[in-house]
Amino acid sequence: MLYMDHIDALNTHDMSGFRPVFVAGREIGWMRHGVAERLALIPGGVFEVGPFGVAIGGAAASPDARTAAVAAALSPLIDEGLIPPRRGELYPVVERWGEPVLFALDRAHVAALGVRAFGVHINGFVRRPDGLHMWIARRADDRTVAPGRLDNMVAGGQAVGLGLMENVLKECAEEAGLTPDVAGGARPAGLVSYCVETALGLKPDTLFVFDLELPESIVPDNQDGEIQAFMLWPIERVLETLREPDAFKFNVPHVILDFAVRHGVLTPDDTPEYARIATGLRRVPVCFHPSPERA
Amino acid sequence: MLYMDHIDALNTHDMSGFRPVFVAGREIGWMRHGVAERLALIPGGVFEVGPFGVAIGGAAASPDARTAAVAAALSPLIDEGLIPPRRGELYPVVERWGEPVLFALDRAHVAALGVRAFGVHINGFVRRPDGLHMWIARRADDRTVAPGRLDNMVAGGQAVGLGLMENVLKECAEEAGLTPDVAGGARPAGLVSYCVETALGLKPDTLFVFDLELPESIVPDNQDGEIQAFMLWPIERVLETLREPDAFKFNVPHVILDFAVRHGVLTPDDTPEYARIATGLRRVPVCFHPSPERA
Repeated sequence: MLYMDHIDALNTHDMSGFRPVFVAGREIGWMRHGVAERLALIPGGVFEVGPFGVAIGGAAASPDARTAAVAAALSPLIDEGLIPPRRGELYPVVERWGEPVLFALDRAHVAALGVRAFGVHINGFVRRPDGLHMWIARRADDRTVAPGRLDNMVAGGQAVGLGLMENVLKECAEEAGLTPDVAGGARPAGLVSYCVETALGLKPDTLFVFDLELPESIVPDNQDGEIQAFMLWPIERVLETLREPDAFKFNVPHVILDFAVRHGVLTPDDTPEYARIATGLRRVPVCFHPSPERA
Repeated sequence: MLYMDHIDALNTHDMSGFRPVFVAGREIGWMRHGVAERLALIPGGVFEVGPFGVAIGGAAASPDARTAAVAAALSPLIDEGLIPPRRGELYPVVERWGEPVLFALDRAHVAALGVRAFGVHINGFVRRPDGLHMWIARRADDRTVAPGRLDNMVAGGQAVGLGLMENVLKECAEEAGLTPDVAGGARPAGLVSYCVETALGLKPDTLFVFDLELPESIVPDNQDGEIQAFMLWPIERVLETLREPDAFKFNVPHVILDFAVRHGVLTPDDTPEYARIATGLRRVPVCFHPSPERA
């Protein structure tokens, strides 16, 4: 497959199946019509459901009040199997990164409400005499998400109340056994973003990417059971493996392509797709009220 | 001013003043209504002018034939002062980077037809013990474009028939006196793009960015009169100077912000605008038939 196929695959959605979700006048997500119609029957009025949109709030006007009210209103839908069980990890709901947290939502329900989610992905790499090498992880076979698939060395979702770099240190310890003095060398290097429809709903995700250059002497060592093996591959092999449709977890090709662009592994003279890749790696989510500023 | 103000400024346009331009069924640009109406009066039918669009071609069906026919048709408009005099440098006209060259157009008329233009910008930088430093150029006072303003170490538009890396070597020699063995260390690192309306027309530009790490012993030395001085500034000073509205040539802040994002000088934890900057630096041009793939 082409590199662009990964980007196109993660920007596929039929918005006619969704209606927009608002909080305090801000557009924060998209909900399937079936979920909206079910929420319309929940007493209490936390979800004000109209035919063309859903407003969250009602009497719950503070972030904490919204968090509690939304969680309570969603409970019957969990029981009915309409949305997944809670995972016990709260994600921040924002209109855009850097803006106030409007409420917190269980990670399992982020896609059902189609709100933006954020995460950190860490490219662990080694500059060897024979070229640039990248640490690639193979996910454990018992994972719910992408069992057995390839992954970045370290990656994790962004829970509420944690800084990005704090999350990098935490995930590097859990997933790769890296001490803070090693993981602290991770350097922010931008982001990738996409907006994809899945069985669970809409996922408008932003992954903040970090580069962590490691000496050959440091070998990642998984602590939390998420990873079954780490491989140090030449970057050319990593890129070749992107040609296989399902080798990697769905959003990892974005992070690898971004790394290859930033490090000059892909060049604009030799890659006809180059400009489409570079631009396609940072898509603005679908908006009910589109504006170039809604990035 | 805010970093985002630079990005917003370069994505400002009122498309009601333009109509789309097509070649061989491909959308390639935007033309002001006044220019279109004047071209409608040119005999020969190279520009087929309708109220809602302009098709270029007519009998001229090959790239070379289009190049000649378009140049001839534009001549009266130059004489009348409706478009600028030729500069004698031909730019490729493409629907997207990496696709076939549909014809070549004098650099001076690229904005009048609103076609995409491409260029290379080279970040010259030095890793000193006291931190990252960047070479900043001050443009000569006799330049037509941005006289006296600050610029990247080396930058240049992309003429037809030249590779990007070939252009990097050529511009590094002319603008900074760098030998090919030094300039050859430049590494592609992505691109920035914007779409801005100017007095000349619409500019949907893509700048391919290259990083060139230099030892302290190498000092750029301008050969072609475009630059009056080079300064090696700490990256923090470069970013501070971005706060001044008109210190830099109009599109240079994009390249510097991209550099600062890629090198972790700006961090997502400390920069509320971070996600908007990262996404805003790569805008897809305005399209008559919008599609996410038109990057």
